[in-house]
Amino acid sequence: MFQNFDDIGGPEHSAERLSLFRQKLEKLDLSGFLLPRSDRFQNESVAPDAEQLLWLTGFSGSWGTAAILRDEAALFIDGRYTLQAATQVDADAYDIVNVGETSITRWLEDRLAAGDRLGYDPYLHTISQVTALRASVEKAGAHLVPVDPNPLAFLWTDRPSAPVKPIALQPIRYAGVEAADKIADIQDQLSKNGLDTVIITALDSIAWLFNIRGEDVPHTPFVHSYAIVPAEGKAQLFVDSRKVGPDVRDALSKVAELAEPAELNAALHALGEQKAGVQLDPANASQWYLNQLEDAGATIVKASDPCILPKARKNEAEIAGSRAAHLRDGVAVCRFLSWLDANASSGALDEIGVTTKLEEFRRASNALRDISFDTIAGAGPNGAIVHYRPARASNRKIEPGTLLLIDSGAQYQDGTTDITRTIAIGEPTPDMRRHYTLVLKGHIAIATLCFPKGTRGSHIDPMARHPLWNAGLDYDHGTGHGVGSFLAVHEGPQSIAKRESPALEPGMILSNEPGYYRAGQYGIRIENLILVTEPEDIPGGDRPMMRFETLTLAPFDRRLIDPALLSRDEIDWIDDYHRTVFARLNGALEGETLNWLRQVTEPLSGGS
Amino acid sequence: MFQNFDDIGGPEHSAERLSLFRQKLEKLDLSGFLLPRSDRFQNESVAPDAEQLLWLTGFSGSWGTAAILRDEAALFIDGRYTLQAATQVDADAYDIVNVGETSITRWLEDRLAAGDRLGYDPYLHTISQVTALRASVEKAGAHLVPVDPNPLAFLWTDRPSAPVKPIALQPIRYAGVEAADKIADIQDQLSKNGLDTVIITALDSIAWLFNIRGEDVPHTPFVHSYAIVPAEGKAQLFVDSRKVGPDVRDALSKVAELAEPAELNAALHALGEQKAGVQLDPANASQWYLNQLEDAGATIVKASDPCILPKARKNEAEIAGSRAAHLRDGVAVCRFLSWLDANASSGALDEIGVTTKLEEFRRASNALRDISFDTIAGAGPNGAIVHYRPARASNRKIEPGTLLLIDSGAQYQDGTTDITRTIAIGEPTPDMRRHYTLVLKGHIAIATLCFPKGTRGSHIDPMARHPLWNAGLDYDHGTGHGVGSFLAVHEGPQSIAKRESPALEPGMILSNEPGYYRAGQYGIRIENLILVTEPEDIPGGDRPMMRFETLTLAPFDRRLIDPALLSRDEIDWIDDYHRTVFARLNGALEGETLNWLRQVTEPLSGGS
Repeated sequence: MFQNFDDIGGPEHSAERLSLFRQKLEKLDLSGFLLPRSDRFQNESVAPDAEQLLWLTGFSGSWGTAAILRDEAALFIDGRYTLQAATQVDADAYDIVNVGETSITRWLEDRLAAGDRLGYDPYLHTISQVTALRASVEKAGAHLVPVDPNPLAFLWTDRPSAPVKPIALQPIRYAGVEAADKIADIQDQLSKNGLDTVIITALDSIAWLFNIRGEDVPHTPFVHSYAIVPAEGKAQLFVDSRKVGPDVRDALSKVAELAEPAELNAALHALGEQKAGVQLDPANASQWYLNQLEDAGATIVKASDPCILPKARKNEAEIAGSRAAHLRDGVAVCRFLSWLDANASSGALDEIGVTTKLEEFRRASNALRDISFDTIAGAGPNGAIVHYRPARASNRKIEPGTLLLIDSGAQYQDGTTDITRTIAIGEPTPDMRRHYTLVLKGHIAIATLCFPKGTRGSHIDPMARHPLWNAGLDYDHGTGHGVGSFLAVHEGPQSIAKRESPALEPGMILSNEPGYYRAGQYGIRIENLILVTEPEDIPGGDRPMMRFETLTLAPFDRRLIDPALLSRDEIDWIDDYHRTVFARLNGALEGETLNWLRQVTEPLSGGS
Repeated sequence: MFQNFDDIGGPEHSAERLSLFRQKLEKLDLSGFLLPRSDRFQNESVAPDAEQLLWLTGFSGSWGTAAILRDEAALFIDGRYTLQAATQVDADAYDIVNVGETSITRWLEDRLAAGDRLGYDPYLHTISQVTALRASVEKAGAHLVPVDPNPLAFLWTDRPSAPVKPIALQPIRYAGVEAADKIADIQDQLSKNGLDTVIITALDSIAWLFNIRGEDVPHTPFVHSYAIVPAEGKAQLFVDSRKVGPDVRDALSKVAELAEPAELNAALHALGEQKAGVQLDPANASQWYLNQLEDAGATIVKASDPCILPKARKNEAEIAGSRAAHLRDGVAVCRFLSWLDANASSGALDEIGVTTKLEEFRRASNALRDISFDTIAGAGPNGAIVHYRPARASNRKIEPGTLLLIDSGAQYQDGTTDITRTIAIGEPTPDMRRHYTLVLKGHIAIATLCFPKGTRGSHIDPMARHPLWNAGLDYDHGTGHGVGSFLAVHEGPQSIAKRESPALEPGMILSNEPGYYRAGQYGIRIENLILVTEPEDIPGGDRPMMRFETLTLAPFDRRLIDPALLSRDEIDWIDDYHRTVFARLNGALEGETLNWLRQVTEPLSGGS
């Protein structure tokens, strides 16, 4: 199993560890400390040895920050984690603060006094974050103090060791472009901008640039590494040599000098001595880089990581790979959904059981490299916990009259998938059907949208919410995130969310996942991955328009659809989608599963 | 007449004046100069003596910037002015550049060489603009040089003198809040933020804060003035004493020390000598303030003008005033539309004639203080020029088989209006009806939207475009702008546009004006003003939602509506709106106009 169901997190150790931490702060003459959930690669998915926030607070969400002052401590989370944080964190030790309501900087400004010293670990915050943080801290007359090593290093004594897993090359038939060509493009850009060097700090950028994949991070094929690309000459790739087998070494040596991570610091200082003009992305490089380079005398030019946009715009090989991955994944998901329909009525299934079964169906493809994140299987009220992860203590039976929300994905060598289906167990209530149908209307609004060049995800996010808004409902997460190509299941810069993001461009892959959550009762989310198409002319129109092609192949639960709430166009879209699902998958299915698929993809009857 | 139809602008003098300007630059040892359309108040509507861009280039649009280099010159405009600039500007002298395609900074970066000196007038650019500009200019190794006085001062010899018009007080029954209370609120904020002083540089902020109105700027009741508000003690208001009558002096003296504009510089230097902490809004204060204050030794804190948000959130008196203004304006517009319907078929009317007639109908209210901007009456192809202004040379007959676009507004003491109607002259073509109906669908999407706290105008702008996008169409302007309360017809910070703006809040007034423009044929725009309502619970919902209340009262042209393209809900909205228009206006109308209104507000027959 790629997934485990250990009961991680929880409030048991919060008070004791917080007290130890505060003692340490006092010794360091600090008034407080800020600990984010990130690792030194600014990564969402972190290795076990980097789970510092979890160790300290008991909170296991993928995003959060603890602010610890002498007499007060807060855990900052976002709307996805409101319910989870309430169960995992000791409320006597930490106030739980939703950053949508009070920002970290605002909270600090209200509490810091002149002369206070707020500590932070320079490896764990980006340059942009530190800039904003420093402005707030200094507004209060306090000081922001880099602390290296982080006080936790002394407290967390049974910390696991860092991963050492072998690197694999991503073949050209999936990558589409040779590493040498990608590097040459970056070098051209540097020369054009009159820069000497760029430092690539994001792990997905490094994996993409060198066409390598690893196993250092759970569910995301990253290699813990660092890269320096000069305008002329060979790139440098800093990676633990124990991870590099002979074939990989041969291939990488053609495009890079390989070095140990411990040599990075010296390489940065060498850039300083050369008085080099160094490009660094303040949005994903940690403050540590800036401190090292500035100390060494380099000239920093802050600009976006040059890999981000070409990585986001998938090439033809990557798009073909994603289509193949979605076909394979659709087969597994349909086998699972068919099995679930046949067995759920027994009342004997539970969240861990269905999660295990789903992974088995995916493994049966013989192509599963990993799941792309811990499956969220939320039965009944657990479905309303947006980023719920089934574990032994919280494991619920799947009972008639409830909804089951399953959000899962796979890592295949040709592509990353991410799909959510919400399933009626037994007879759904009228409210369940109404809410499901409203969420589906929002999903269809995105799936059928056509839009001109320059449209950003923030512009279209409300289209998915509109049917819910009309009913006085909404959801506290974005509508869509970018997805990598056998890389991170959350990949920027594209997104469909309220927060502004760059314009959508052809080749970008995103999720389309509106939802609705009724606390204590059920959660609904409907998620497909979608691909931005090339602009096309529309008859009678005067501007070419882009669209989304839906990549995910699996039926929606028709028992939850109320056709009376749908327009003719919406019903037609569902019927078309189901027709496509059947046409693409039926050849790979047989027997009961095929019968099931035929039934569940029949056209909806009735309608408005 | 408030409007005149003089033929302003045009390419006749472009080449000669550009040549004189370049000679002047050479004497000043400048490689180039940047001249925006703004005045020293960063105002959109400028007095005749500030029309420098028009004098130099012949371009009369409300937004534009000329960049003049030794061998090259460009006029930067936005999408609204593509067609107008092409007719007004000498293409041999200036390249016309749409900033949506190439930004000014990008254009400069590509052309400036190391050591070049680019001049600018520090009064005409905001601090933010200069910061961005300087970064670009220095990236190219060139220097940004403040030039005071501006070279044009020596060339424009027949320049009109600055306006000296009397100031009026805005009575409390319209303003809603006393100036003393507004000032006290600002002072509280300053004290809370530990600041000594704020400098208010925006004319609408000053007019709002002191409850004064003037006539210094065409169509916008601003007073050319400057204000300094200290955390403690009396505010200072710098205004030409010839504009201040005895009553106004009595009232203002209670809340401010009055001083001449020439004394401003000394007051800024006094703040410097006190080492004061001075708040300044980099988005609307000119670079000149920053230079003066920094030279004098003040500490600048950059933050938003504190008047902006309270001014945008209209109070009950202002909302009541706006409703009354819209009732009065609706009567005038209906009389006009009824008259137009009776007379347009003759073929004898022209743009200037209908513009004059519309102003007459508004004057008949005996409450018209000014029009709120030059009426845009675009017949046939002139309607496709988004910010067309009728003038003698371009004046077109209003002919059967065309569309007439009329965008106009009024300044009444209780409120500012802005309305666009597109009228079929004779029999419209199927394309005209289809395009009009698609624009109307977008208008209705905004008018009927409900949305939660935190929603920004940028989030909802695409709702208005969606029906057009589906047909491969779009428009190159925002969907809505904020509107003042007997103040500027374009007022920030709220807007409905692609550009990010602050969250919509109850009491904000905006326009809702999607459009479609077929170059060389016709323009369509449908504009009402809308008011953001307080959040309200929706039955069955769990979050309160805000809505828009439509303020404008005038029928749409039913001859241009194709009900087959509308949903039942859309038809119901149009019928409801027309019912409201009739119910609100019928008591003020009589005879033929009343008959006309009854007919044009009847429910639409048919529908899908």
